Amino acid sequence: MKPSGPTIRTIPDGDDRERLVCGDCGFVMYENPKVIVGAVCTWQDRYLLVRRAIEPRLGYWTMPVGYMELGETTEQGAAREVWEEAQARVEVDGLLTITSIPQISQVHLIYRARMLDDRFAAGPESLEVALLSWDDIPWDSLAYPNVRASLEYEREVKGVAAFPPLTRS
Amino acid sequence: MKPSGPTIRTIPDGDDRERLVCGDCGFVMYENPKVIVGAVCTWQDRYLLVRRAIEPRLGYWTMPVGYMELGETTEQGAAREVWEEAQARVEVDGLLTITSIPQISQVHLIYRARMLDDRFAAGPESLEVALLSWDDIPWDSLAYPNVRASLEYEREVKGVAAFPPLTRS
Repeated sequence: MKPSGPTIRTIPDGDDRERLVCGDCGFVMYENPKVIVGAVCTWQDRYLLVRRAIEPRLGYWTMPVGYMELGETTEQGAAREVWEEAQARVEVDGLLTITSIPQISQVHLIYRARMLDDRFAAGPESLEVALLSWDDIPWDSLAYPNVRASLEYEREVKGVAAFPPLTRS
Repeated sequence: MKPSGPTIRTIPDGDDRERLVCGDCGFVMYENPKVIVGAVCTWQDRYLLVRRAIEPRLGYWTMPVGYMELGETTEQGAAREVWEEAQARVEVDGLLTITSIPQISQVHLIYRARMLDDRFAAGPESLEVALLSWDDIPWDSLAYPNVRASLEYEREVKGVAAFPPLTRS
């Protein structure tokens, strides 16, 4: 059976805005923004970047980043993404950037993280992983503006113990 | 028709964790953590608190706070909640606290905000709204631990232009 799912836009009783409702079963889906977590990970003076093996932006470089899952903290989610995409173990530190993208209802929380050793490998969603010096970062092949902003802000607060997150939207 | 909705726990093809699937229509629901936004709002040396008119914690006091909605930034969501619950207009400033509650898959982002004037009123989800001096805050009747933590941290960073968010979980 082909799933139809919640595809009808209507305001449910007692609500004040449109929600998606399933025409088959009547289920009301409360859609809310999604949280994306990730980390700018460093080992000494080098940066851990992954080349995306999946769309969107397949083939472009990013810090490890992905959807936060149920039952984890934001820091645990960031460390999990680093493990899944780059097979590296990190200690997650302060929040570097908080970026709202209201057009697609996402909130990106990118942390600063320190690699516990210099081991890494490509996970299933990565074409390759690299530990790069600042000058070797492929600036023209970054997946999103937030990658550059988060890398640059990490460099700005390097050695600073406590710092405000860079707010972007 | 009584909605059944996505109630069957199963791992969809190509996925690596259980999701809820609708037994009627086959729709797969990707559940992710929800973002709660709010603000500790001040007018001069007083704090804007609302008494909850809805469960959970009906009758207890909190800063204005609620689910982030689609199509807004975190700051816009915080200002919207302040308007809906306390009918006050604010300028949202830095991120005060970021609290993960993995047990219920929520991320709370509480901002510092300055009221633009001293007008306020109870919105439909509030029993009453008050602008209280620090000593008049009903410390024994606060709705959640995060309310106290956010209020105390606001006081700690008062007058400080840029500060790291307090991280809690």
